[in-house]
Amino acid sequence: MSAHGWHADPSEILRVADGFRLSDVDPDGTPGYRGGKQHGVKDLAARVHELDELQERLWAGSRAGDRQDAVLLVLQAMDSAGKGGIVRHVVGGVDPQGVELAAFKSPTEEELAHDFLWRIERRLPAPGYIGVFDRSHYEDVLIGKVRSFAEPDEIERRYGAINDFEQRVVASGTRIVKVMLHISPEEQKERLMERLERPDKHWKYNPGDVDERMLWPRYMAAYQTALERTSTDAAPWYVVPANHKWYARLAVQELLLGVLQDIDPRWPEADFDVEAEKRRLAAS
Amino acid sequence: MSAHGWHADPSEILRVADGFRLSDVDPDGTPGYRGGKQHGVKDLAARVHELDELQERLWAGSRAGDRQDAVLLVLQAMDSAGKGGIVRHVVGGVDPQGVELAAFKSPTEEELAHDFLWRIERRLPAPGYIGVFDRSHYEDVLIGKVRSFAEPDEIERRYGAINDFEQRVVASGTRIVKVMLHISPEEQKERLMERLERPDKHWKYNPGDVDERMLWPRYMAAYQTALERTSTDAAPWYVVPANHKWYARLAVQELLLGVLQDIDPRWPEADFDVEAEKRRLAAS
Repeated sequence: MSAHGWHADPSEILRVADGFRLSDVDPDGTPGYRGGKQHGVKDLAARVHELDELQERLWAGSRAGDRQDAVLLVLQAMDSAGKGGIVRHVVGGVDPQGVELAAFKSPTEEELAHDFLWRIERRLPAPGYIGVFDRSHYEDVLIGKVRSFAEPDEIERRYGAINDFEQRVVASGTRIVKVMLHISPEEQKERLMERLERPDKHWKYNPGDVDERMLWPRYMAAYQTALERTSTDAAPWYVVPANHKWYARLAVQELLLGVLQDIDPRWPEADFDVEAEKRRLAAS
Repeated sequence: MSAHGWHADPSEILRVADGFRLSDVDPDGTPGYRGGKQHGVKDLAARVHELDELQERLWAGSRAGDRQDAVLLVLQAMDSAGKGGIVRHVVGGVDPQGVELAAFKSPTEEELAHDFLWRIERRLPAPGYIGVFDRSHYEDVLIGKVRSFAEPDEIERRYGAINDFEQRVVASGTRIVKVMLHISPEEQKERLMERLERPDKHWKYNPGDVDERMLWPRYMAAYQTALERTSTDAAPWYVVPANHKWYARLAVQELLLGVLQDIDPRWPEADFDVEAEKRRLAAS
């Protein structure tokens, strides 16, 4: 548990475990955190450097050492839930040289010609990196299910395929943190309305967002199934209440910090003779 | 010219023009800027948000509008000159979703099987992005020349090939800002020594760096030729004195701001009926 405003560990209280019901999660909540917005914003800023340094150690270990660790953050959410804000305000504090970001849009023809995990595999983070998936293979059991882009048998097959895939990724040294940012439909309405009211936000608005919004209950049912079928020990899901942006950012930061602290990456030993190099450099 | 500490425009005074001599540039200088380190660090921080917003506008225009603009920052330098610091402290202030970073290492076998520009072309930034090349196709006329990785005829061919290539890139809508960070050999010695003295920096040290360092005059000659042969109106070179890290960062930030201000990206008009969407959203 952190020394900051957390009184419970988000990796425990936000984790999708047996018996989890998405409908029990209050998108307005701030579970585990004792402060309000002002405190939360301060805590976020205070730990940006810590995340940055842990990533730098991870990177150093993957260059000079023999470690193959990487971290993959998977972000899923309904439109306007704040994925972009997580990338900007949490991941944005890490050296860009240590981040690999992949935004998955509607699949291209080439991508559709392959299995749904093909395009995902190609974007996995290399050792030393924090990878971020803005949407992911989960779209193929979420919109894919709601919009019937695939037969029910195929959707069914995918849960197991995802678990096998993720287990293999984890075995190769990549920790996976899967986050669903959970907002209420009322909050979404306000956020979309703001995009319509501000001319500098019009470009973010897509009339198709309202079409998806109309299918809210079906999306929640698809999330429930996906969460329940694919939250594993190797790659657990966390559902993060996201009506309060400051809370969601803080919680995701804490989840990432927890995983990196657990890896505990160390500065690698020099693989050259330090004193000899000092002499050689001094003479140069 | 900026309202900040600049009394001359870096895009004019740092630009490689006819008669340029690299040996005339003082790596210790801070040309065009009237303040010292304290002022410079403050100015850098003050304008991070401006760069971020200009990039967001660039991105918005490339999504909803009909603009195809992108910006490409090419960074070249001797080891330890501060390329990483530029990425972290200048580019790091921009939303990671708007940055495409490519670090070019020694070419792989696959890359060597193609023309030297093949791997470069694949990493050009898409519309809306700021692309950053940490090293670039210029390695092929720098280390490539110094270490004789190619015949003199081939090196000679490359200057023209680079100019043709860059002209085509610029014509497609990408502004190119090419920066050589210029440090003195004495400054490099200090920086490399620091890496040897700090165990948390050992991983950054590579004995090969000293081998390259021994060839300093030959590298400077190769830079001189590359700068004079490839600083064009379409894609000018800027030589940025870099013994003072704060100055180099500030100068590169100013160069990027200048290019983006010149593009002057605007928030695009909505391509849907805003009032109708408000009604549809309200009813949902």
